[in-house]
Amino acid sequence: MRYGFLGPETTFTHQALLQALAETPEEFAAPEPELVPFSSVATAAADLIAGDIDALMAPIENSVEGGVSGTLDVLAATDSITIVAEQTVQISFVLAARERLALEELTTVSSHPHAQAQVQGWLRAHVPGAHVAAASSTAAAARDLAAASPEEARGRAAVCSPLAARHFGLEILAEGIEDFDGAITRFVLVTREGRIPARTGADKTTIAIQLPHNRSGALLEALEILGSNGVNMSRIESRPIGDFLGRYSFSLDLEGHLEDRRVAAALRSLHRLCPVVQYLGSYPRADGQRPEVREDFADHAYDDAREWLEHLGTMITPTVHAPTPATAAPTAPSTES
Amino acid sequence: MRYGFLGPETTFTHQALLQALAETPEEFAAPEPELVPFSSVATAAADLIAGDIDALMAPIENSVEGGVSGTLDVLAATDSITIVAEQTVQISFVLAARERLALEELTTVSSHPHAQAQVQGWLRAHVPGAHVAAASSTAAAARDLAAASPEEARGRAAVCSPLAARHFGLEILAEGIEDFDGAITRFVLVTREGRIPARTGADKTTIAIQLPHNRSGALLEALEILGSNGVNMSRIESRPIGDFLGRYSFSLDLEGHLEDRRVAAALRSLHRLCPVVQYLGSYPRADGQRPEVREDFADHAYDDAREWLEHLGTMITPTVHAPTPATAAPTAPSTES
Amino acid sequence: MRYGFLGPETTFTHQALLQALAETPEEFAAPEPELVPFSSVATAAADLIAGDIDALMAPIENSVEGGVSGTLDVLAATDSITIVAEQTVQISFVLAARERLALEELTTVSSHPHAQAQVQGWLRAHVPGAHVAAASSTAAAARDLAAASPEEARGRAAVCSPLAARHFGLEILAEGIEDFDGAITRFVLVTREGRIPARTGADKTTIAIQLPHNRSGALLEALEILGSNGVNMSRIESRPIGDFLGRYSFSLDLEGHLEDRRVAAALRSLHRLCPVVQYLGSYPRADGQRPEVREDFADHAYDDAREWLEHLGTMITPTVHAPTPATAAPTAPSTES
Amino acid sequence: MRYGFLGPETTFTHQALLQALAETPEEFAAPEPELVPFSSVATAAADLIAGDIDALMAPIENSVEGGVSGTLDVLAATDSITIVAEQTVQISFVLAARERLALEELTTVSSHPHAQAQVQGWLRAHVPGAHVAAASSTAAAARDLAAASPEEARGRAAVCSPLAARHFGLEILAEGIEDFDGAITRFVLVTREGRIPARTGADKTTIAIQLPHNRSGALLEALEILGSNGVNMSRIESRPIGDFLGRYSFSLDLEGHLEDRRVAAALRSLHRLCPVVQYLGSYPRADGQRPEVREDFADHAYDDAREWLEHLGTMITPTVHAPTPATAAPTAPSTES
Repeated sequence: MRYGFLGPETTFTHQALLQALAETPEEFAAPEPELVPFSSVATAAADLIAGDIDALMAPIENSVEGGVSGTLDVLAATDSITIVAEQTVQISFVLAARERLALEELTTVSSHPHAQAQVQGWLRAHVPGAHVAAASSTAAAARDLAAASPEEARGRAAVCSPLAARHFGLEILAEGIEDFDGAITRFVLVTREGRIPARTGADKTTIAIQLPHNRSGALLEALEILGSNGVNMSRIESRPIGDFLGRYSFSLDLEGHLEDRRVAAALRSLHRLCPVVQYLGSYPRADGQRPEVREDFADHAYDDAREWLEHLGTMITPTVHAPTPATAAPTAPSTES
Repeated sequence: MRYGFLGPETTFTHQALLQALAETPEEFAAPEPELVPFSSVATAAADLIAGDIDALMAPIENSVEGGVSGTLDVLAATDSITIVAEQTVQISFVLAARERLALEELTTVSSHPHAQAQVQGWLRAHVPGAHVAAASSTAAAARDLAAASPEEARGRAAVCSPLAARHFGLEILAEGIEDFDGAITRFVLVTREGRIPARTGADKTTIAIQLPHNRSGALLEALEILGSNGVNMSRIESRPIGDFLGRYSFSLDLEGHLEDRRVAAALRSLHRLCPVVQYLGSYPRADGQRPEVREDFADHAYDDAREWLEHLGTMITPTVHAPTPATAAPTAPSTES
Repeated sequence: MRYGFLGPETTFTHQALLQALAETPEEFAAPEPELVPFSSVATAAADLIAGDIDALMAPIENSVEGGVSGTLDVLAATDSITIVAEQTVQISFVLAARERLALEELTTVSSHPHAQAQVQGWLRAHVPGAHVAAASSTAAAARDLAAASPEEARGRAAVCSPLAARHFGLEILAEGIEDFDGAITRFVLVTREGRIPARTGADKTTIAIQLPHNRSGALLEALEILGSNGVNMSRIESRPIGDFLGRYSFSLDLEGHLEDRRVAAALRSLHRLCPVVQYLGSYPRADGQRPEVREDFADHAYDDAREWLEHLGTMITPTVHAPTPATAAPTAPSTES
Repeated sequence: MRYGFLGPETTFTHQALLQALAETPEEFAAPEPELVPFSSVATAAADLIAGDIDALMAPIENSVEGGVSGTLDVLAATDSITIVAEQTVQISFVLAARERLALEELTTVSSHPHAQAQVQGWLRAHVPGAHVAAASSTAAAARDLAAASPEEARGRAAVCSPLAARHFGLEILAEGIEDFDGAITRFVLVTREGRIPARTGADKTTIAIQLPHNRSGALLEALEILGSNGVNMSRIESRPIGDFLGRYSFSLDLEGHLEDRRVAAALRSLHRLCPVVQYLGSYPRADGQRPEVREDFADHAYDDAREWLEHLGTMITPTVHAPTPATAAPTAPSTES
């Protein structure tokens, strides 16, 4: 089994993949799982579709590695890959350098822009004078700093994960430097088509829809379909389709599994409304939380309704034409008095 | 075949039944159709359920014979009768007396209250002095006037149908006395359970629903179910259930047939929402008008969606547990550097 | 002060009026309140409008006296009367006769049809053989029995209120004979236009609306207007308008007062949607129950939003045309290189 | 007057600004309009707020220059800037090099990633072997190529606008190389707070909203508010707020102006629902298209409703307590017979 991830090594995506392998060993533990870093979700997805790797971990929500809209676009561009698992990673950053030095000595801090956005308050407060340079990932920032010549490395630090700092042998100048506690990034594990994991009772379903053109209120109709089947959304993101201004696809995470009648019913209705509905997978929630489902959205309510209707259907009978009567013309009003 | 109707003879209900027999002879023309007047819809329905008659014509909407809410209540009270046809009758009234006399000579005008409501403008304008007396039907008003002693009949007139005036040999003092042109009463033909006429493409479906108690907004949810399946209502009437203030059942006519996927889908969803859904029949519309159906509410849209979902369903596979590996523990982060 | 009520004396409507006078003496207690029975709501309303009486008590919901749809129609037919109070009366029935006798001896039981509907189970069980005769009210049934000749009264009983039985000196054969405990009838006190009682915090508002013709989904829109302002309905009744099949007016009781911003906002929106909106009054709830109001439907939420918008409005400024420049043409691309 | 734009010179944003200056000379034509390129929308916005420039042109939708989500985030981050105009630019690309050469000779093609996405089909078909390199804008790609040494420029081309190619003296190898005809990018002109241009009848309004946390269905409620006021959206984009997974702000373009009653009413209702509503400006539509407005969403419908309600409001009167009567207790039932 070969697992791709958005690299290089020690990215948060890498961590997410390791977490997934550790948490469900009997599921993933082929004798020798091989982990393959990729420089972009798009190239990894191409290798996945081509069969060079068997699965791919990619960030999908609030990522510090970039790749979120990239992941959404890759998922939307093909019908042959499916999300089979999600993984969340607690995000915390350190400021790391080649050697111990005072913050005042720093002239340049490098990191990925998403990560920078999460530590900018701290940086303004503690290293106001340093120039901020963009790297392609937090791991790359750490790696490049580790690989730099002593000359190049002078006055430089990287914002990266504790793991990356350790892995590349950097000195940690400050830790927990993120402006908000408790940031989480969400990742999905994607495989080549085919397999949908069975329902666990605490699941999510990811879809992408395009709305009918020139029908104002179509998004409202789509959300009403979800609401009238008791299906909550945990994520909605708009992505421009790119052909005309004002045309979007929407990427949605729904609470529930394809096997849940309420989810299936909502998908059926969306399929009627939307010119494009992409089913991208049903998979266990990382937090294991089971949704509260109102009585009329439970499976048995859908099943009872179907049975009732099937029973009614048996009563439909083609019109039986009575044998034409030999004599009697239908009684006319005037004959009745 | 015995057909009951809300009598006595020459009521508009009687006319509706004769019209139905005349219009679809091959359907109804048993050799000797027998027409049986009843004094109330309730007693006729009891005889229908008991098997003493085979079908029953009753007014359901805007009737001049009374019996509309009576008909709704009778339909709501049993599961064993079904509407199989509707009939509409153009309503027009005459003022009729035992003999020709001037309007000024009239002291009493009798009729059914619903009919009176439709001619009250004319009566106020033309016979302002006359007392208005209630009869149990317009036909009864005519019949009783015809049967009265000359003494009793003096100064009296009846508001009734032209047919009733002719039938009972009354003199017509004025015709077309209704305040509004074009009034129509709608009647339904009801049979003992069992048979739903096949779809014609121009059909109606009648149901009665009770809404869940203590859920404000449940009527809104019910109407949204209809709207999101493209099902129009041509009639909605509230009827108090009678157990608590504010508890209603609603009698609805829907455009479409049980065989229309959009109607079936709406009924299924209503069945989940409502503690009680009574299916009272699908039948051809009297006006033969076919509804315009938006593309995403057409049968094929429902069928396509179902096929798509069934295809997705085949991809659900129980988790396959890989054979526990003899050696490899999942790679931990620390081993990777 | 002259108060009309749907008579005759000792009807439940009479009781409702006495209750209202007793409960709020300082409001109603003119030195000599005079109570005037009427045979119909319509005639009483005519006298009210004409100034012959000052107020009118009439049943509006689930009444045993009839008059509910009559009351709704009377309210809908004029703009010059307003509901200023509601009153609910616990309904219980007795079976009363001229003298003590065994139930088996009864041949006829008379009452108002609505009352009969509430005791029919009991009657079937205990006096299965007796003929059931209709009276114009439960009070009339009692009064007529009291006034009958001994000959006429033989074998007869009336279903009426305990008050009516006592008042007319009848013997009570059985009490609490209603099939369902806890039935309540609701009455409204109506005055000639003009005065809307101030908000108490536990109020109702009654309106009648007509929906736009030929717009399917208009009822849904009306209910959405209420829902999106957090206004619950405690009553909805359809009444045919009478001009065409399928045209209804709806009589609604809303939770809240005209002074509640959420009610006022909903009324404004209904006024745009509906060709006819009749405001029939805001008045204290009989049960004194205050609605729970979500934060965003509270008065201050409406007030804050209005202030915010008024502030934005001050920023709208007509386009100011700058003095035409003497020289400079806007810089063209080619001049920039 | 100093106008900032997302530079460098000859970007499509630059074109949009020149177009705006040319089309409405009397509005913008200060004697010497000065155009100032910025490397990012964020830095330009900071200068705008600081007063160093007077207005700023920035891409907002489907841009080829990047900056779209950057623009949305900048708009969302402050209350002190307002959109006062929009401008659309037809997007077309050329492939340009330092000197005329055959496509087969190309080894590297540089451009902005958004532009690349729009020409990738053409590139794959015509220069399949060339490496694609990212530049910070199409204009930068052209400028850098023009500034490169002959050595560096060998085998290289840039994807850029015809204007940029001309401006930097490049040779055009191919033109109209975009995969889809008719692509348009939309730009907005932003000023320091304060002024909202008056209604023209063909306007847009831009807002950003945050939905209440933990209320599933809040987006549905927001869209219903727009729908029930007849306000169409021409753009909706989700932006993660960044504090928790699943928390978004939505950037919306509404059809209509703050002065339109229906827009004002929708904004008021959104203000109640949403913890944050940012009003970002009302401005003339670039396409001059007037929306069709249903009768019940026209200004006069709102005005009529308000007048009606104000009239009703005058009828609310505090309860008048009658002087306590000296004698009369309210008449009790027993006294009435």
